[in-house]
Amino acid sequence: MTLNQQQTSLCNDNPHDHSDLSAVIINTTLKRDSSKSHTKLLLDVAGDIMEKNQVSVSHIHMLDHQVAFGVQPDMTEHGHDRDDFPKLWKTISAANIILIGTPIWLGEESSVCRLLIERLYGMSGKLNEKGQSSFYGKVGGAVVTGNEDGIKHCSMTILYALQHLGVTIPPQADCGWIGEAGPGPSYGDDADGGPVGFDNEFTQRNATIMTWNLLHMARLLKDHPIPNHGNDRNAWDAGCRADFENPEHRR
Amino acid sequence: MTLNQQQTSLCNDNPHDHSDLSAVIINTTLKRDSSKSHTKLLLDVAGDIMEKNQVSVSHIHMLDHQVAFGVQPDMTEHGHDRDDFPKLWKTISAANIILIGTPIWLGEESSVCRLLIERLYGMSGKLNEKGQSSFYGKVGGAVVTGNEDGIKHCSMTILYALQHLGVTIPPQADCGWIGEAGPGPSYGDDADGGPVGFDNEFTQRNATIMTWNLLHMARLLKDHPIPNHGNDRNAWDAGCRADFENPEHRR
Amino acid sequence: MTLNQQQTSLCNDNPHDHSDLSAVIINTTLKRDSSKSHTKLLLDVAGDIMEKNQVSVSHIHMLDHQVAFGVQPDMTEHGHDRDDFPKLWKTISAANIILIGTPIWLGEESSVCRLLIERLYGMSGKLNEKGQSSFYGKVGGAVVTGNEDGIKHCSMTILYALQHLGVTIPPQADCGWIGEAGPGPSYGDDADGGPVGFDNEFTQRNATIMTWNLLHMARLLKDHPIPNHGNDRNAWDAGCRADFENPEHRR
Amino acid sequence: MTLNQQQTSLCNDNPHDHSDLSAVIINTTLKRDSSKSHTKLLLDVAGDIMEKNQVSVSHIHMLDHQVAFGVQPDMTEHGHDRDDFPKLWKTISAANIILIGTPIWLGEESSVCRLLIERLYGMSGKLNEKGQSSFYGKVGGAVVTGNEDGIKHCSMTILYALQHLGVTIPPQADCGWIGEAGPGPSYGDDADGGPVGFDNEFTQRNATIMTWNLLHMARLLKDHPIPNHGNDRNAWDAGCRADFENPEHRR
Repeated sequence: MTLNQQQTSLCNDNPHDHSDLSAVIINTTLKRDSSKSHTKLLLDVAGDIMEKNQVSVSHIHMLDHQVAFGVQPDMTEHGHDRDDFPKLWKTISAANIILIGTPIWLGEESSVCRLLIERLYGMSGKLNEKGQSSFYGKVGGAVVTGNEDGIKHCSMTILYALQHLGVTIPPQADCGWIGEAGPGPSYGDDADGGPVGFDNEFTQRNATIMTWNLLHMARLLKDHPIPNHGNDRNAWDAGCRADFENPEHRR
Repeated sequence: MTLNQQQTSLCNDNPHDHSDLSAVIINTTLKRDSSKSHTKLLLDVAGDIMEKNQVSVSHIHMLDHQVAFGVQPDMTEHGHDRDDFPKLWKTISAANIILIGTPIWLGEESSVCRLLIERLYGMSGKLNEKGQSSFYGKVGGAVVTGNEDGIKHCSMTILYALQHLGVTIPPQADCGWIGEAGPGPSYGDDADGGPVGFDNEFTQRNATIMTWNLLHMARLLKDHPIPNHGNDRNAWDAGCRADFENPEHRR
Repeated sequence: MTLNQQQTSLCNDNPHDHSDLSAVIINTTLKRDSSKSHTKLLLDVAGDIMEKNQVSVSHIHMLDHQVAFGVQPDMTEHGHDRDDFPKLWKTISAANIILIGTPIWLGEESSVCRLLIERLYGMSGKLNEKGQSSFYGKVGGAVVTGNEDGIKHCSMTILYALQHLGVTIPPQADCGWIGEAGPGPSYGDDADGGPVGFDNEFTQRNATIMTWNLLHMARLLKDHPIPNHGNDRNAWDAGCRADFENPEHRR
Repeated sequence: MTLNQQQTSLCNDNPHDHSDLSAVIINTTLKRDSSKSHTKLLLDVAGDIMEKNQVSVSHIHMLDHQVAFGVQPDMTEHGHDRDDFPKLWKTISAANIILIGTPIWLGEESSVCRLLIERLYGMSGKLNEKGQSSFYGKVGGAVVTGNEDGIKHCSMTILYALQHLGVTIPPQADCGWIGEAGPGPSYGDDADGGPVGFDNEFTQRNATIMTWNLLHMARLLKDHPIPNHGNDRNAWDAGCRADFENPEHRR
């Protein structure tokens, strides 16, 4: 019963076909056990809407994997014993939609979220056959939960990084829940009257709008890919070199 | 001679028709005299590319106007003697593309840039005939210059605000120039070998890619507007009230 | 009755003498009428604690003054007809404590707050007789209110700017109040059980701790000024020039 | 030869005694081999100045240790097989000065830096014998390097987190080096005329001022601890509970 009646009706009445789209939903919670993640509960609203519209959804719980620190595509080639990122990249690179969820700790996205962004950044030197960043054609969004303060700060970071990589950000591409300043329950914690935040119409509305905009924009970009006139990176030197540490300046 | 040879060639060879598009380029420099603005010089790269492709471009130099502080559509209805924003809004609301330029002072966008964002925010309660934010269908980008440090921080703020309002952010929708840490010339200042930054291929490449992506995405959204299934705000109450100070919660 | 019983008791029992200290409390609300500012209500907690301890407190309501845009000490020397900042600077430069209050709009500090920071930045080329920034010896804090989300983001900006200028930031130098995600009352708005936030013990605790830490640190720095060994800017060239736009690089 | 002549002279001529102070310098680079870290080269300027003044300096290269994700003091008590943080905490908690160095990736501090901040945050429920956060009495600073853009954004995050925890931030407590926009060398990379940035007087000046201010303020706080009148957290309930996930709300 993740979706409320209004969210369910919208799925039932969807006049658009999204069944050929795929999405990856990545949870960067600090919880190793995904069932304890509050962020997951709000990510699930988006995921369930997508699945009800026949979108193929992959879920990645980052801490189920051993992703190495670094900004190279495969860190086992740079001294690390193990790196699960290349496996995750297969899923991510195949998706039309990238949705990143993060908790807020001390007002910021999690370290795991930054690790994910660093590894995505590590892929930014790769171009598609049209000379565009390989992230072109994808759309992205952000889901943020905490018990107080920081949704916009975290979303800003995530959405900025995604657009920098080549992802398109549709309108109103984030949502979140926080409580009043001070200690208190997190999203989905039990309280009188049911799980906290589930009946916050603002949060539910924004989660819904975000999800549908991700679907609409993914549909649009799949049907009408961004032309490469003017954005073909092969046309520019821009000081790039094969041996650069900085991934976006590699070629 | 704002555009270099490569930028000019791309305009000459453009296989797409952008002649029915309009753009507004807003400079939030602290310079009252626009001819002294370094930010303007980089904004002009984008503006000239657009104009060479027959886009109808309006330029707003914020400090040429007296825009009142506040978050209501017309602050003369709230005690201010004068407010030029309603006049500017006519131009902004008619544009397919919103490009905001800011200088960096102490690592942040200018106060004038925040004033602009607050006033745009003041319009966020207005919905189009489909119940979407009236910013839907627009695309946005950011141009940032300083003499050291802060492009991404400022872009992040601007692009986040725009997407929050309902603007679509295409891939790689920002560009900028800064110099090495410490004092030094600003973009376009004279130095040996010509104006500083004009030959920075990275800055010129990013300005070019940004501009073309704004054009491509504006084309796409004009031809294929974002459907309103799932993002019709009239379908939600979400606690909105006519008398709310916060513009996005007004109805 | 701004202070609660605990806050009042602390003032009554203060074993320290703060009567020779001065503070300036600057409200950067977008409200022209200070009596309508929610931020003022939380600033008053800090102000009242200070006054009860015989600190000399000056209040500046920024929008009562016409402060020009720019980064020069006196903008009337740079083409502006009027600039009230030089007058305000007399008050600010005389204070041991600078406390800045801002509302949150779209997740950020107000444009008026940025205007203030730009003008303070415009004074950063001035050195004291020991060659230190003229802000040395001052301590600073931030008070942030909104109806949802953004305390830390705004505080971060304000406190960073202050330390950059030469102000010392004591522990836990900020406080704020926001409500749950979504529309709702602002700090001090009437609700069942009294003004919203006044009984939020977390907000009141943090306001209290912040204020006392500002007092303790101001006491410390007045009695034991920061030596100038190693921070005398006259000992460095660092590329500074009299004609630089950037205030911190002027000499 | 880390220190230039001016930096060396200041150490030789130091009229103050800092020999009873201790510092921990924490490098959050993504490089596992500390000898490859550019950030380390600038951290060493600060470290060498401290050591020349007989400060006891501990160096932590975060990636030499296996620090678990989470916000509890010891994550082995919460399901992790290994967690080196408790060992690091012994060093950190004993230091008067905490200096954090980070590289910039996509405009932000590293994931390792956020991991460190999360773990420090995990200690924020601990109070000293005066009821203050156990970080009281410490002073903190930030060192940031990248090849382009982001010093202030990263410093802002680090310094805000430190003051939130209870650390005092002295004036001008950060420094950094970045190059012009676009790809290029990192701090210390070989170029014509020697390692890049070593002769940037602005960077060297700021590193020097930061370091001396850390020393001066640590001296001050060791000799004159912050009184606990008004900041004794035991005096407040503020909704804290022993079982809270959020470390600052635990008791």
